[in-house]
Amino acid sequence: MSILVVGTVAFDSVETPLGRADDILGGSATYFSAAASLYTDVKLVAVVGSDFPMERVAFLAERGVDIRGLQVVDGRTFRWSGRYDYKSNTTETLDTQLNVLADFHPTLPEGYAASDFVFLANIDPDLQQEVLEQVPDARLTMMDTMDFWINTQRESLVKTMSRVDVVTLNEAEARALVETESILTAAKWILELGPKLVVIKRGEYGCVKVDGNGYFTCPARLQEEVKDPTGAGDSFAGGFLGYLDKTGDLSEASLRQAVVHGSAVASFTVEEFGVERLRNLTPKDVAARYREFQEFSHLAEW
Amino acid sequence: MSILVVGTVAFDSVETPLGRADDILGGSATYFSAAASLYTDVKLVAVVGSDFPMERVAFLAERGVDIRGLQVVDGRTFRWSGRYDYKSNTTETLDTQLNVLADFHPTLPEGYAASDFVFLANIDPDLQQEVLEQVPDARLTMMDTMDFWINTQRESLVKTMSRVDVVTLNEAEARALVETESILTAAKWILELGPKLVVIKRGEYGCVKVDGNGYFTCPARLQEEVKDPTGAGDSFAGGFLGYLDKTGDLSEASLRQAVVHGSAVASFTVEEFGVERLRNLTPKDVAARYREFQEFSHLAEW
Repeated sequence: MSILVVGTVAFDSVETPLGRADDILGGSATYFSAAASLYTDVKLVAVVGSDFPMERVAFLAERGVDIRGLQVVDGRTFRWSGRYDYKSNTTETLDTQLNVLADFHPTLPEGYAASDFVFLANIDPDLQQEVLEQVPDARLTMMDTMDFWINTQRESLVKTMSRVDVVTLNEAEARALVETESILTAAKWILELGPKLVVIKRGEYGCVKVDGNGYFTCPARLQEEVKDPTGAGDSFAGGFLGYLDKTGDLSEASLRQAVVHGSAVASFTVEEFGVERLRNLTPKDVAARYREFQEFSHLAEW
Repeated sequence: MSILVVGTVAFDSVETPLGRADDILGGSATYFSAAASLYTDVKLVAVVGSDFPMERVAFLAERGVDIRGLQVVDGRTFRWSGRYDYKSNTTETLDTQLNVLADFHPTLPEGYAASDFVFLANIDPDLQQEVLEQVPDARLTMMDTMDFWINTQRESLVKTMSRVDVVTLNEAEARALVETESILTAAKWILELGPKLVVIKRGEYGCVKVDGNGYFTCPARLQEEVKDPTGAGDSFAGGFLGYLDKTGDLSEASLRQAVVHGSAVASFTVEEFGVERLRNLTPKDVAARYREFQEFSHLAEW
């Protein structure tokens, strides 16, 4: 079994209260692949420019990520630069250079379309639909998005949501999309569009999985130091789908375990800048942290 | 067994996105007593003015709350007026009239000092210490506070913290007190002062219990409507201490159960303005909601 991910591979420049890092490897597909490859085979689709040193993604290939879908086109790689303020809990985008991403159209190399699971990372919802059309037999499709698409491409975004099995987004985005303060109301609204499952990410507060039967609250691990929150959401998605693809089990118990796996992987991601912490992370590390989640959230019968 | 609570009985005027209510019964001791009396005997100490109609607290007396400690003095009752903005997650204090509270000194009627558990609600830390001196044999003492005391009486507040067993406060207050963004760092700092336990309240995100051995994350129930958040924290404290006093069990499992009981009671409080929802609440209602917490937070073994 394997997971197809379509997203970005980028150069990030990041400033946080604990330091800064320039021109480091970033992008949603990068974080997702680094996380999901701890569990299963990953097939990556993204685009970079001719300035991109392919050795940057060698560690992914070594972990079995199929990078044949990483298109290299003339021009510069997508660049994002941002600053995190922990006091106000905000992310300020300092600069976005779409570069080669501006004309990106995902094309799937041979064998990619047979993937059981598909993750449509945060890209233009029109492109997300282009991918969906190429994977009619996928067992489970999941999408992420961001406020930019809610504000500029709402109609297309809602259409994409109606065509996937799982929607994940941040709570501020869910509130903005549905114009409500209640994330439960927001999740129910999205479920009405068609998805079976919504996972609302709440940053340092964890996340909530909502479906037609109810919800599951997953706490976040308390961290004394968050070096760099970049990629936490995509790492979450990677751990979540990676676990599900590995087990093949979509029962409620398994979905809850997958949510905790995603949260556990994301809790490592934020410990270092960029993908550094994910490079040498092992399934054993994640298993130990899963047990930590169990311990700090365990409620005895009463 | 019984709990002594020292706090306020007040008139509140509250505005939320879902409505407003004027001159309703409020105050930390009121909410705490309404919650804790679902579990055990409560002895209340507070002050009101000669304008206070005693029938307002008749429902507490009917539930076995000992209101002999409710001093009535010449003058007007403490009044608070505030507005909640759910979008910005802020509380704006529109008006505070201390009135008779300005000269309040807690005195304990006969029998009060024998209480096993003591809750020092959010009042001047000097007054909290005056109470502590009157209950040298208490089995467990717990205090709450607020940003006002952190900003104006830091030294006295820290001293009070060093003399109690349990400190509870909001996460914004914990961050302000310790000047850190990490609530785990904040909790550890407070534990260093002497308390055995810190409970950091995170509003719609639940709360975290921290002690020398680790922490327990308790989620909040997802609510589609929060009519009025006033008193959620004091209701939490009432459910928490009420459960512990009833069971007499201070083990880790019991403390976690107590945190969930507090959260369950608080989830009712916010469903109506003021103490309305607590008036007719029964232990059976709380037990059903406890099971709901178990279900939405349950993580299967893995």
